[in-house]
Amino acid sequence: MLTLDKVFNAQTVLKNIIRETNVVRAYGIAPDCELYLKPENLQITGSFKVRGSAYKIAMLSEEEKAKGVVACSAGNHAQGVALAATKNGIKSLICLPDTAPISKVEATKGFGAEVCLVEGCYDDAYKKALELRDSEGYTFVHPFDDENVIAGQGTIALEILNDLDNIDAIVVPIGGGGLISGIAYTAKQIRPSVKVYGVQVAGAPSMYNSVKDGEIECLSSVSTIADGIAVKQPGENTFRYVSDYVDEIALVTDDEVASAILALIEKQKMIAEGAGATAVAAVMANKFDLKGKRVVAVVSGGNIDVTSLSRVIDRGLLNSGRSSSLLIELIDKPGQLKEISRIIADCGGNVTGVHYEKGNTESVNGCFLRIEMETRDFEHVNLITKTLRDEGFKLV
Amino acid sequence: MLTLDKVFNAQTVLKNIIRETNVVRAYGIAPDCELYLKPENLQITGSFKVRGSAYKIAMLSEEEKAKGVVACSAGNHAQGVALAATKNGIKSLICLPDTAPISKVEATKGFGAEVCLVEGCYDDAYKKALELRDSEGYTFVHPFDDENVIAGQGTIALEILNDLDNIDAIVVPIGGGGLISGIAYTAKQIRPSVKVYGVQVAGAPSMYNSVKDGEIECLSSVSTIADGIAVKQPGENTFRYVSDYVDEIALVTDDEVASAILALIEKQKMIAEGAGATAVAAVMANKFDLKGKRVVAVVSGGNIDVTSLSRVIDRGLLNSGRSSSLLIELIDKPGQLKEISRIIADCGGNVTGVHYEKGNTESVNGCFLRIEMETRDFEHVNLITKTLRDEGFKLV
Repeated sequence: MLTLDKVFNAQTVLKNIIRETNVVRAYGIAPDCELYLKPENLQITGSFKVRGSAYKIAMLSEEEKAKGVVACSAGNHAQGVALAATKNGIKSLICLPDTAPISKVEATKGFGAEVCLVEGCYDDAYKKALELRDSEGYTFVHPFDDENVIAGQGTIALEILNDLDNIDAIVVPIGGGGLISGIAYTAKQIRPSVKVYGVQVAGAPSMYNSVKDGEIECLSSVSTIADGIAVKQPGENTFRYVSDYVDEIALVTDDEVASAILALIEKQKMIAEGAGATAVAAVMANKFDLKGKRVVAVVSGGNIDVTSLSRVIDRGLLNSGRSSSLLIELIDKPGQLKEISRIIADCGGNVTGVHYEKGNTESVNGCFLRIEMETRDFEHVNLITKTLRDEGFKLV
Repeated sequence: MLTLDKVFNAQTVLKNIIRETNVVRAYGIAPDCELYLKPENLQITGSFKVRGSAYKIAMLSEEEKAKGVVACSAGNHAQGVALAATKNGIKSLICLPDTAPISKVEATKGFGAEVCLVEGCYDDAYKKALELRDSEGYTFVHPFDDENVIAGQGTIALEILNDLDNIDAIVVPIGGGGLISGIAYTAKQIRPSVKVYGVQVAGAPSMYNSVKDGEIECLSSVSTIADGIAVKQPGENTFRYVSDYVDEIALVTDDEVASAILALIEKQKMIAEGAGATAVAAVMANKFDLKGKRVVAVVSGGNIDVTSLSRVIDRGLLNSGRSSSLLIELIDKPGQLKEISRIIADCGGNVTGVHYEKGNTESVNGCFLRIEMETRDFEHVNLITKTLRDEGFKLV
């Protein structure tokens, strides 16, 4: 049974393991409310997950510690367990599907865990972890559905309430529900007037659906850029805590998440992973009634690989008119590229790519010219396309 | 004359204007030393600059305050002056060349400044600012060569020494030299054993050259991605402080800066601008003797526009083998793309772009195929190219 005592105890236990991340004021992201961020992306291991695992592990008996722990995860939970075990001087074994990216495997090893690669998918690795628990006597560290794990995550609420007076609401990402269970339980015990709002992505609405229908449901598939919260089924404990303590759950789209990642980069100079940006995305997209309120959005993690980050930025630039692509139908005669280049340059656009493409043009001698440009905004893009049209070019 | 008293006084004055940014331990960036970061990219306005301007402005007489201040900058200094003036309830006017990016103009206005766009380049805007000082009685806030501005930047050293015991060295970016003058002076007064190292970029080595030659020199041109420290000439005060208190200055290349920006994103989940990443770049590239030392690198700012950031990331991905581009000479017959796609997929590469290009191939029917891929590392790229060659494809 979760109690406030356990959360306070977790805070003491975690003191020398985790970083106390300070709440920061976020300007320019959500003008309608007074927004603060709880930056758990700056937490050691790049995610809040280490709190729960570290408290869980610290609470094991000496006998259990001597045997070690096992977990199953390709992401933040794996790194949290690995670091927490290492800091407690005990053995950790992480089961991963053999399709897991090398970078994740290396990161997990880097925090001191042994890695067991299992042929197949996540479910196979999970089964293997339970087998090893039974055969070797390891303690299994669940990523969310465990009272001590939840108590560890609850320490975030203690820090928020300590940093800020008179907050009206805390907005929290939901995957399996461990983070929001800990935060909602703790916040409501200490200051019942605080609203706690949960956020899931439209591509993985397991807790949202379950709470709506009043019973735990399992999704057949999940698909989102917020892979850290792509969970098919809530836990039994977390379902109960969320049902009891969370005021409202909303869904955000992947594009809203991408915009939030970009806003955090531009306004706060910080990197959030997809899951980590969902709470901010919900605030930006006005999913809750927060007008004029003092609000804390939990940025739960920052472990996004740079390739994905690069795609998110590229998409964000396109979505905001800061990069654009034109397709122009040309008659294949000399000087056309020169003319187009001149017009774009005169308008202040910066050409970053040019490709000639054959295709079904009106004239047999025609071809298509694909121009990629850096632009200022949509108005700037419109200026360039209008000028090109005015000078007789045919834009497709 | 700069005194330690002024720096302590600045700390008190700045208390309700700036954020006290906490030093954070940086893992995995420079394995040979115990590296900490002073994250002034997380400072309000996204740069340390607000410290100096705010102290300068707070120290003005009531008469001077009533008239207001003028400054010339398209970047971090402008925003610092604007915010500091607004917080002190006085008027600020920022002269900018009319070629300044709209985003910078808007950001400066957003902090409450009036903006005066001046036809021409930076030097023209600077001249205009001095004219307005003389005609209107505004106080000119110099970006670096001013004792009170330097005292304001010195508060960073107070915070570092307060956060961390027994530090061996502080590494600091140098543009005009205001930041390092304040830090070096303050640190050496309080703890003379601390080494203070300065970093400039190879494309703008004004302080480096001046100190080496023992006299202030002026560069005819500067070129670097670290535009925040692209300064042609050190100040008279800053040249003296740097000569007296800085132990060593090193130069870093733009590629080293790009790698540092990428490392800060991946390991620390934070965004640095080019100038802001130079100290970290110098540590990563072993420019100073820091082995086994406890070192603080100052990340001076985070105001990089997303388009530049996107380029830096793309370049970093290329430089580390995480994206790559192949040029394959084909005989123009059916099924070739299918074969190549199969080989790349079997090797685990992810195709992100395909272009056919005509060109001077061996066979008249030949053509070039350009393939862009996401890869894991250089070993992975080599595996793919070797397999393609082994299967008979001709890579250019």
